[in-house]
Amino acid sequence: MNSREIHLKRRPNGVPTAADFELATVPVPSPKPGEMLVRNVFMSVDPYMRGRMVERESYVPPFRLGAALEGGAVAQVVESNGGPFPVGTYITHMAGWREYAVIGGTGVMPIDPKAPLSAYLGVLGMPGMTAYAGLLKHGQPKEGETVFVSAAAGAVGSLVCQIARIKGCKVIGTAGSDDKVRYLLDEVGCDHALNYKTAGDLTKAISAKLPGGVDIYFENVGGAHLVAALNVMRPFGRIAVCGMIDQYNATTMPEGPGNIVQVIPKRLNIRGFIVSDHYDMLPAFMTDMSQWIAEGRIKWRETVYEGIESATDAFVGLFQGENLGKAVVRLGPDKL
Amino acid sequence: MNSREIHLKRRPNGVPTAADFELATVPVPSPKPGEMLVRNVFMSVDPYMRGRMVERESYVPPFRLGAALEGGAVAQVVESNGGPFPVGTYITHMAGWREYAVIGGTGVMPIDPKAPLSAYLGVLGMPGMTAYAGLLKHGQPKEGETVFVSAAAGAVGSLVCQIARIKGCKVIGTAGSDDKVRYLLDEVGCDHALNYKTAGDLTKAISAKLPGGVDIYFENVGGAHLVAALNVMRPFGRIAVCGMIDQYNATTMPEGPGNIVQVIPKRLNIRGFIVSDHYDMLPAFMTDMSQWIAEGRIKWRETVYEGIESATDAFVGLFQGENLGKAVVRLGPDKL
Repeated sequence: MNSREIHLKRRPNGVPTAADFELATVPVPSPKPGEMLVRNVFMSVDPYMRGRMVERESYVPPFRLGAALEGGAVAQVVESNGGPFPVGTYITHMAGWREYAVIGGTGVMPIDPKAPLSAYLGVLGMPGMTAYAGLLKHGQPKEGETVFVSAAAGAVGSLVCQIARIKGCKVIGTAGSDDKVRYLLDEVGCDHALNYKTAGDLTKAISAKLPGGVDIYFENVGGAHLVAALNVMRPFGRIAVCGMIDQYNATTMPEGPGNIVQVIPKRLNIRGFIVSDHYDMLPAFMTDMSQWIAEGRIKWRETVYEGIESATDAFVGLFQGENLGKAVVRLGPDKL
Repeated sequence: MNSREIHLKRRPNGVPTAADFELATVPVPSPKPGEMLVRNVFMSVDPYMRGRMVERESYVPPFRLGAALEGGAVAQVVESNGGPFPVGTYITHMAGWREYAVIGGTGVMPIDPKAPLSAYLGVLGMPGMTAYAGLLKHGQPKEGETVFVSAAAGAVGSLVCQIARIKGCKVIGTAGSDDKVRYLLDEVGCDHALNYKTAGDLTKAISAKLPGGVDIYFENVGGAHLVAALNVMRPFGRIAVCGMIDQYNATTMPEGPGNIVQVIPKRLNIRGFIVSDHYDMLPAFMTDMSQWIAEGRIKWRETVYEGIESATDAFVGLFQGENLGKAVVRLGPDKL
């Protein structure tokens, strides 16, 4: 049996393009003892993957050239050679970017497919957990505080906004189009939303909406967003740094925040984090998030691309702001 | 009776110069009920004062033009109109930059003059407390960790280095002259020390001394020091931001750290602080520091300027790296 998969053909220079990737057809090996053959139903497309396309030391090794990319996926077990889950089980795992995969048990979690399968790559998956852990642990929101979220219409940002609202905070979100701004106000429930491309000076635009300043900044973008955040933060504010998508494609050293000195008079705390450091919060996340969804307090959107041949476009689109909510690629039907 | 005092004549543009200040002779009023007349013996000269010379909103109001500057001082009570301490008492207070002052009880602490009086402006005063609280609370040093201290030969930095050593850490310090580097190695007890003016690329220079990287960066300088720190920090490192003397005289927005994105993969924590937020640690500080001094584990140096007419030079000198250890001005003899 053959499977199609996306290979990294060359390391992107700047913004990734389709030419950096290659769709390859490869034979699928039989599962060895303890392994399973799984059919990927959805694969996840995430900005953080850009970092793994660079050859450097980091918290995860870089992707190898000429090999399949890796990323989150929802799959169904189709064959098991004494593997950890029986045939038919739906699971999440990290061998996405291919139609079929042979995997062991590492990083594999069974899921209860009552929610739509793709939700386990979004609101009930890594982005949901990122929003939950980042905001609650590093933002430490208190009722009545103000929260600024950049890339607020994205997979993580849109959930941060809603969790902050649930915690009794006032929320301002930024996004890159008027449609996204409308989405933030009408569906996500932001108190304020700005199109950063047309809002002019971000510091002034945020201050106009929240003259009292901001207690928490959930950082997804970097650059001018971070500068504005440092300007509008209130004393003892917290900046939870989840991502800086503005900088992932930089080919030279990007400009840093020239007002970083603000951390002293304002006693700010800036904390970078990675979701996998907070897996101790996973049970609380699943409980809270499931309940919030059941109560209708958390909503989500997805941008669904069809077929593995569209995965590259989906990834490149992340850096053009194409996606509203979570970007996923459907690789096959829920059930065969 | 008259007193001489230093007035802010105009707000400095860039590096402060003597022409920004003025020595004025003013009549000393009689203390009103509840007040004391005090004779200042030493006054403190500190980089943070530069911030108060700018007209802007901050955690303390800006200095007023044509009025005496304010700063820490050690004084002796010479007259009391029912004030909080009897005549003859040695105190620290915040009405420095003048020879005599009439004060109430706010910000006044009596001192036990067994240590040299000037020590209460340094090792046993605000800089000591800054080093202690900043390193222990925000740096969270653990035995065997590595600590990088910038402006390590300064009032705060030289104490941070020594406290870090007491806590079992390996310490690298930077300073701006070979003499200071020798001082760091021979007296302060740094494991490594660098002259940042001649060391070339700071990232490489620090990595050469500490190939395993740095767990804690105690930030006094900003600019290239912060960039290097972000580069050499180990995962879960802490950056305690005490000051950024490199930026205090900037007339345009300074360059920010272009590698700030490092906070994410390294999960760094950057925390700005001000000593006055940590006065809950004052009793522990006085106990620990007094004991460490008694045991000979903490040493300190001072750069002493003579007479209030030298106060301006002392302040301007801070930004030229003139001082080794704490800069103070002697305004009169210990006893009259």
